[in-house]
Amino acid sequence: MSKHLTSLNNPIIKQAVQLKHKARERKARGLFIAEGLREVRLAINNGFEAAYLFYDPDQTNQTSLKEVLSNAPIPPAETITVSENVMNKIAYRSSVPNVVGIFKNKKISAEGLAISNEEPLILVLEGIEKPGNLGAILRTADAAGVDAVLVCEPDFDLFNPNAIRASLGAIFTQPIFEMSSQAAVTYLQEHRIPIYATYLEAARPLYECDLKKAAALVLGAEASGITDFWVEQADNRIIIPMTGQVDSMNVSASAAIVLFEAVRQRRG
Amino acid sequence: MSKHLTSLNNPIIKQAVQLKHKARERKARGLFIAEGLREVRLAINNGFEAAYLFYDPDQTNQTSLKEVLSNAPIPPAETITVSENVMNKIAYRSSVPNVVGIFKNKKISAEGLAISNEEPLILVLEGIEKPGNLGAILRTADAAGVDAVLVCEPDFDLFNPNAIRASLGAIFTQPIFEMSSQAAVTYLQEHRIPIYATYLEAARPLYECDLKKAAALVLGAEASGITDFWVEQADNRIIIPMTGQVDSMNVSASAAIVLFEAVRQRRG
Repeated sequence: MSKHLTSLNNPIIKQAVQLKHKARERKARGLFIAEGLREVRLAINNGFEAAYLFYDPDQTNQTSLKEVLSNAPIPPAETITVSENVMNKIAYRSSVPNVVGIFKNKKISAEGLAISNEEPLILVLEGIEKPGNLGAILRTADAAGVDAVLVCEPDFDLFNPNAIRASLGAIFTQPIFEMSSQAAVTYLQEHRIPIYATYLEAARPLYECDLKKAAALVLGAEASGITDFWVEQADNRIIIPMTGQVDSMNVSASAAIVLFEAVRQRRG
Repeated sequence: MSKHLTSLNNPIIKQAVQLKHKARERKARGLFIAEGLREVRLAINNGFEAAYLFYDPDQTNQTSLKEVLSNAPIPPAETITVSENVMNKIAYRSSVPNVVGIFKNKKISAEGLAISNEEPLILVLEGIEKPGNLGAILRTADAAGVDAVLVCEPDFDLFNPNAIRASLGAIFTQPIFEMSSQAAVTYLQEHRIPIYATYLEAARPLYECDLKKAAALVLGAEASGITDFWVEQADNRIIIPMTGQVDSMNVSASAAIVLFEAVRQRRG
């Protein structure tokens, strides 16, 4: 019943390799690749549909895998066992729980963003450059319980293997949208969600802002921060008070500080 | 007066390459290599002594460089101009302000750690695995104005080029010490600085801790957190309240949250 693949020349395996390396391929096919039992579990549990699920029966904890599959809202279309050489070819990391899935992109438009929280906490990332930073920020956003993440004009495709890996699968747990900055502002204004943009000039200290109510927290690109567009659209410009000589924090550190200040203010 | 080097076979250039790649070489010679005008400026301004300073006159903003040198507490022992091919060989990144320094390690023992702040804020990092995380954390520590950073049993040498680069030079702005966990605990206990260790079990929520007084905040390794040693030595075990499905933040995000909660509490 289940297929077993040992050849690197199999067209499905070749496709997996393409999806791993090429953003263009991911975009053209509407597919992405995720690896690791933890990441694959989070993708499946959160309603992502696997076109293929590969595992190496000699390396995989099959009890854990069975548990994931038996609880899947949408079971993988095809589950395929592969040899070690095939797994090494398609996996991004070696020596990792050897499960790899090819998943269909979920297309969620901003209109589909239904927020049940009456005072939502939304994270907006403008022009993010590094998939690793996005991944780290999504782990923080998951921990902070944000209602949505809007990613505006990123420098890479969201379901980049590096972003998935750095997120430990948090990329699958939250409503995440790629959209233009203009579309994000339109959405936020229509829903009367005040915009708090982090900005180093003429801004209010973070700790003087009331983040208990609906809030969209905006962070800019690693090197240059937010653009003038967001400076102008912001209802509030906020700054994290800094001392020191370097005057620059990593964007994932800044995101952690502003998101958890909201968490602190919103605690029971 | 000033030397100009164009050959990759020059012994000084060979030494620079060794220092870039080999922790063993850095340790044996008590030297490290830093690049970029910003990083070199911070090293020099903070009293690090350059054995050699290299720059490519065609690529470097010489007005900025002169300003750095004229304000140097300890001027570089030797300033050498190099050709583009030599710079490409010794520099870690290409297309960066092309200044590279070979610096002497400052040996600061824990006994030399003189803290003037009556209620110091100290960051302790145990078993950190990734130089990039250390760098990001040091930027945050600089911004938070910590009094010292104690790095216990790191997986790499502190003046690793990746740590320097990720820190944007923040590694030079703070009293940073590499020591054993035992030495760190002894130091903190002798100075009556309470230990707050981040821990996922049986811990007090961060926001219920009083961090206005002297505090040492302890974070553990990326994958495994703090060891039992610190769990037992801690005066307080603290937890960042998390929701979500992933239940794991990047160590630099956690560090940002705990350090800036102390900053918030200590504000005017």
